Amino acid sequence: MMKAAVLGATGSVGQIFVHLLSGHPWFEVSVVAASERSAGLKYSEAAKWRLPTPIPENVSDLDVVDIEPKAVRNIEDVDVVFSAVPAEAAGKTEESFAEAGYVVVSNASSHRMDLDVPLVNPEVNCDHVCLIDEQRRRRKWSGAIVTNPNCTTTVLTLSLKPIYDEFGVERMIVSTMQAISGAGYPGVASLDIVDNIIPFIREEEEKTQTETLKIFGSPSKPADFKISASCHRIPTLDGHMMAVFVEPKREADPESVMAAMERFVGEPQKLGLPTAPAKPVVVKHNEYRPQTRLDRMEGGGMSVVVGRVREDPALGGVKYVVLGHNTIRGAAGCGVLNAEYLKAKKYL
Amino acid sequence: MMKAAVLGATGSVGQIFVHLLSGHPWFEVSVVAASERSAGLKYSEAAKWRLPTPIPENVSDLDVVDIEPKAVRNIEDVDVVFSAVPAEAAGKTEESFAEAGYVVVSNASSHRMDLDVPLVNPEVNCDHVCLIDEQRRRRKWSGAIVTNPNCTTTVLTLSLKPIYDEFGVERMIVSTMQAISGAGYPGVASLDIVDNIIPFIREEEEKTQTETLKIFGSPSKPADFKISASCHRIPTLDGHMMAVFVEPKREADPESVMAAMERFVGEPQKLGLPTAPAKPVVVKHNEYRPQTRLDRMEGGGMSVVVGRVREDPALGGVKYVVLGHNTIRGAAGCGVLNAEYLKAKKYL
Amino acid sequence: MMKAAVLGATGSVGQIFVHLLSGHPWFEVSVVAASERSAGLKYSEAAKWRLPTPIPENVSDLDVVDIEPKAVRNIEDVDVVFSAVPAEAAGKTEESFAEAGYVVVSNASSHRMDLDVPLVNPEVNCDHVCLIDEQRRRRKWSGAIVTNPNCTTTVLTLSLKPIYDEFGVERMIVSTMQAISGAGYPGVASLDIVDNIIPFIREEEEKTQTETLKIFGSPSKPADFKISASCHRIPTLDGHMMAVFVEPKREADPESVMAAMERFVGEPQKLGLPTAPAKPVVVKHNEYRPQTRLDRMEGGGMSVVVGRVREDPALGGVKYVVLGHNTIRGAAGCGVLNAEYLKAKKYL
Amino acid sequence: MMKAAVLGATGSVGQIFVHLLSGHPWFEVSVVAASERSAGLKYSEAAKWRLPTPIPENVSDLDVVDIEPKAVRNIEDVDVVFSAVPAEAAGKTEESFAEAGYVVVSNASSHRMDLDVPLVNPEVNCDHVCLIDEQRRRRKWSGAIVTNPNCTTTVLTLSLKPIYDEFGVERMIVSTMQAISGAGYPGVASLDIVDNIIPFIREEEEKTQTETLKIFGSPSKPADFKISASCHRIPTLDGHMMAVFVEPKREADPESVMAAMERFVGEPQKLGLPTAPAKPVVVKHNEYRPQTRLDRMEGGGMSVVVGRVREDPALGGVKYVVLGHNTIRGAAGCGVLNAEYLKAKKYL
Repeated sequence: MMKAAVLGATGSVGQIFVHLLSGHPWFEVSVVAASERSAGLKYSEAAKWRLPTPIPENVSDLDVVDIEPKAVRNIEDVDVVFSAVPAEAAGKTEESFAEAGYVVVSNASSHRMDLDVPLVNPEVNCDHVCLIDEQRRRRKWSGAIVTNPNCTTTVLTLSLKPIYDEFGVERMIVSTMQAISGAGYPGVASLDIVDNIIPFIREEEEKTQTETLKIFGSPSKPADFKISASCHRIPTLDGHMMAVFVEPKREADPESVMAAMERFVGEPQKLGLPTAPAKPVVVKHNEYRPQTRLDRMEGGGMSVVVGRVREDPALGGVKYVVLGHNTIRGAAGCGVLNAEYLKAKKYL
Repeated sequence: MMKAAVLGATGSVGQIFVHLLSGHPWFEVSVVAASERSAGLKYSEAAKWRLPTPIPENVSDLDVVDIEPKAVRNIEDVDVVFSAVPAEAAGKTEESFAEAGYVVVSNASSHRMDLDVPLVNPEVNCDHVCLIDEQRRRRKWSGAIVTNPNCTTTVLTLSLKPIYDEFGVERMIVSTMQAISGAGYPGVASLDIVDNIIPFIREEEEKTQTETLKIFGSPSKPADFKISASCHRIPTLDGHMMAVFVEPKREADPESVMAAMERFVGEPQKLGLPTAPAKPVVVKHNEYRPQTRLDRMEGGGMSVVVGRVREDPALGGVKYVVLGHNTIRGAAGCGVLNAEYLKAKKYL
Repeated sequence: MMKAAVLGATGSVGQIFVHLLSGHPWFEVSVVAASERSAGLKYSEAAKWRLPTPIPENVSDLDVVDIEPKAVRNIEDVDVVFSAVPAEAAGKTEESFAEAGYVVVSNASSHRMDLDVPLVNPEVNCDHVCLIDEQRRRRKWSGAIVTNPNCTTTVLTLSLKPIYDEFGVERMIVSTMQAISGAGYPGVASLDIVDNIIPFIREEEEKTQTETLKIFGSPSKPADFKISASCHRIPTLDGHMMAVFVEPKREADPESVMAAMERFVGEPQKLGLPTAPAKPVVVKHNEYRPQTRLDRMEGGGMSVVVGRVREDPALGGVKYVVLGHNTIRGAAGCGVLNAEYLKAKKYL
Repeated sequence: MMKAAVLGATGSVGQIFVHLLSGHPWFEVSVVAASERSAGLKYSEAAKWRLPTPIPENVSDLDVVDIEPKAVRNIEDVDVVFSAVPAEAAGKTEESFAEAGYVVVSNASSHRMDLDVPLVNPEVNCDHVCLIDEQRRRRKWSGAIVTNPNCTTTVLTLSLKPIYDEFGVERMIVSTMQAISGAGYPGVASLDIVDNIIPFIREEEEKTQTETLKIFGSPSKPADFKISASCHRIPTLDGHMMAVFVEPKREADPESVMAAMERFVGEPQKLGLPTAPAKPVVVKHNEYRPQTRLDRMEGGGMSVVVGRVREDPALGGVKYVVLGHNTIRGAAGCGVLNAEYLKAKKYL
């Protein structure tokens, strides 16, 4: 078993990391780090645990330590570091861990767009992990930082991958209906979202647009198709739904697109990684699906679910809806899958 | 005062007609008609009234009659007929009223796409009422049928009108987040929508696409820009929010588009029609607006509220969000405004 | 393995029966029966399946048959019949199955208050199954009807049992906050419950009052403490929360009551029945718990979760809140546990 | 017109004060005070306005000042001070205003239980304002502090008043279903309340119990009936619903109780105070009412709406449900009505 530290372990995404790593066949959470307020407390005291499943027993009594390489090292010699540190603090913190020799698998946005940092959605672009070598050369550290995309980008790019591979993408538009858990905790005030929509999520559209192009590019150069996003918060708990409109490079009818999606598997499936869902893209043929509450846990929350693939009369391609679990596939689950891929490729 | 009959008066949209006509300066509800189950009851007994305001006193005690010209005529010599009859029954029913000489202002979809029936969103295409003359010639009746668009189309076309007039439209995409009241009562089961999205509303996308083109066309020929809609039901009570992406014919930057929207007024404003909102298109500059619950009653529910007008990198034009009240501007309110226009133009 | 039929298998509670029996160590669903509309279809076609887990494979392709003993017998020689038939049809239907020799484990209210029909919440009054013998004598049939209580009563009586046993009950009041799934599907219209409370559920208060007294009585005579219920529907999906105020016969302080609850086990636990939760009454000491969404699946949805046990200044006893899953513990799960008990006691 | 200052004017309750005083026939908001963060800004900049109606024009451009008598005096010589200051700061602050000679009408809990401070729900116990004289003597100030009860107590006591007057109260129990707006803004996190109930509101039960007894007592001595409350937060926006169980001193059947409620009027009605609703207690005879969303604005949000008055088999009296608007009748509206009464009685 490899030992893992979780940074920012008491927050929303940190809790999901702890939950997903409980019972994991390769990784075991040995250190939990959080902000100063929590340091010195047991994890069960520090985390206001909000998942319906109980706190994993092996983590419940761990002492929470400061988010510093030294503090982590004092406790245990960990093999991998999962970072759920908030964006405003993640930049420097993750660098200090990489300098101290740790491989940091991060959900934070701080380093995603750095030229020498892999931004990886494993079924889509796991080959980008080769950037680690350049990163080490440039930054002169023995550790590494590997990031996963923001939640919207993760769901979108996974659904788009089979189309991109078989038909190419010239231009695309995405309009999202995003769950409240995407804003963390306490996050969205209930007075702002009951019987309401908030038509704006700061930086979400920019992230979706730039991260998608980085992911579909080569390790050294972003893709250059046209992409436009409109992002909206609506009153659902978990699961981001999106309407996607695609103009492919080569003619693509709905049936061919669905067939491409249904037969799609990525490297994680081929390598049999433990968190890889059997079918990364599940296609529903009932036109009332996917539905957020009914389908978000497909593949343990690691699959995206596509429905209503049909012709698009504006772009001359296809349009569809896709749903993915924002805190599993779109955050901690993607991070765990990245770590598994890194281990399979001997980066851990 | 002109006397009005409301057909389908006990249903969701029927109740809004009754509510909006209460205290109206020109029209007074004198006859309420509903399906056989209700006939013979007082309106207050037949309608399961669900608005937070009380049943208008002058309507409360009216006897509900069958939805037939004879039954209406027996009660009162009405000057205009508002139809909130469900689509499956509206076709024949409305024809029988037009044959009997009534001007029927209808919210039903049955006749909207008939070549000789005006489909009118008053600020956008009130000139289409001239089709009444052709309709009378062809159908050999002295009455008339005038329809308003479906809720999504109404909100969309009103927001699009200033762009269409100043810059033209080459192509557009709309993705909707629609309230549950759009499905009538009982409509959407709570188990289907709490913490959920339903990504499909039967025929809504087709209606939105075809009705929009009819409205922006000349009376005799639909417009020919490209349009694609994706329609979704989400857990809000009233108010349809939409993300709109537009490729204009002529270059249009966000500032010019907002300026065009803010100075826009239509015929109803120029004529000073009682239900016409002072500003049909309200532009919000706070990027967190419009919000469904806070903004749906703008202009008494008759304005649409636009926000987040910004460049669209995929179509090379602009994108924005727009919110409109689906049962007021998007249904009964639009019907009442149509009737006011018909009266101003001596069709009543 | 014993073979089971599920009557009313396509409805809300029927689906939960099918779900809970999937993978059950003793029972296997061999026959699914539903109303005429569904007869002739495969189960997967007839049931509008709404659970987030998929339809169990062994049931998915079963042909749906009419709800008649003959129709069931034609398919398979089943050992037990689970009834999720709606109350209005259940009376005669269940009798016909008992006459045909079947043991019917029913969730319907029709026979609950019959003097010779056991109304059983297993941890509370499983000794009442002895009424089967009298039932057979009186009704001259070889089958049997055994019922479980309505959802509110089930949750209430399980939480009350440790108090009743140790301190007695003189008087009690319960005020409920009930989930929408309690009304079945389509059940509560979304327009009636979003941002709303419905302060009335037909016959729920009467059922709760009379069923509770029957359960706490001897098989032949109801208990005689005073009980009053006020029942309300609120916008949660699953899980009934209740505020309970109890005047015990003997002095009871909050600590003693919690201790009694925490050490409580019933016959199902002693017999090790497969669906029996390890702890039927779970006590939470964090004053913000139980919470509906976080705690309803405690014990697989078979435990009730109590919190905020404190002194009651009005009745001079204790007050507390209790939460239970209304379609699992409060319906199908209770039925399955009843069947397990019947098998353990050789009634099956 | 009397000039008014609103303290804590940018918060939730402060905004309701500003809204209710807009267009008021007697009072005009001349000064808005808020915490240091806001001082120096225009009201429209400082208040994150969240009501669906626009900011009143005469207040929009006012400069926000510090919550200090001097700062207020610098702007305007106001006649009355409305306090929506948060409880933790209200104690000292309100005293400093009373010392400076202001009559402070407060919604804060800090002074409610002081022996010489009137706690007034106007229709119930407006005679308690006589405590002002004692307060001035004891505290040696020329101003005064007059408080309104917490939201739950306000709604409860108003509904209970007709029963108390005609039948007396021996004992009562109340179980609440409270809206999220009761917690202020941002208040309840959406992740804590969507599809959820929180069964605890800190100090709410204690306040409800002690404030109710103070209100029904004489100015110098609380009432001594037994009362027990259980308070719960549920997912509605505005409007507190409660189930109430009452054991009266003298026999009371449901019809007599409803009759007493329907004929009840208080001093505010007799004096014709501008904010007094015509009927303070509205009784609904449809058993599905009151409903939170449909009935909370009854009487402009100043009435409470009672339904389902029926026999209570546990206490031998009556039980009923009551709904009241928590931020209008239960907070700012009650404060405004108190100020009107003070003016009518020459305390202003």
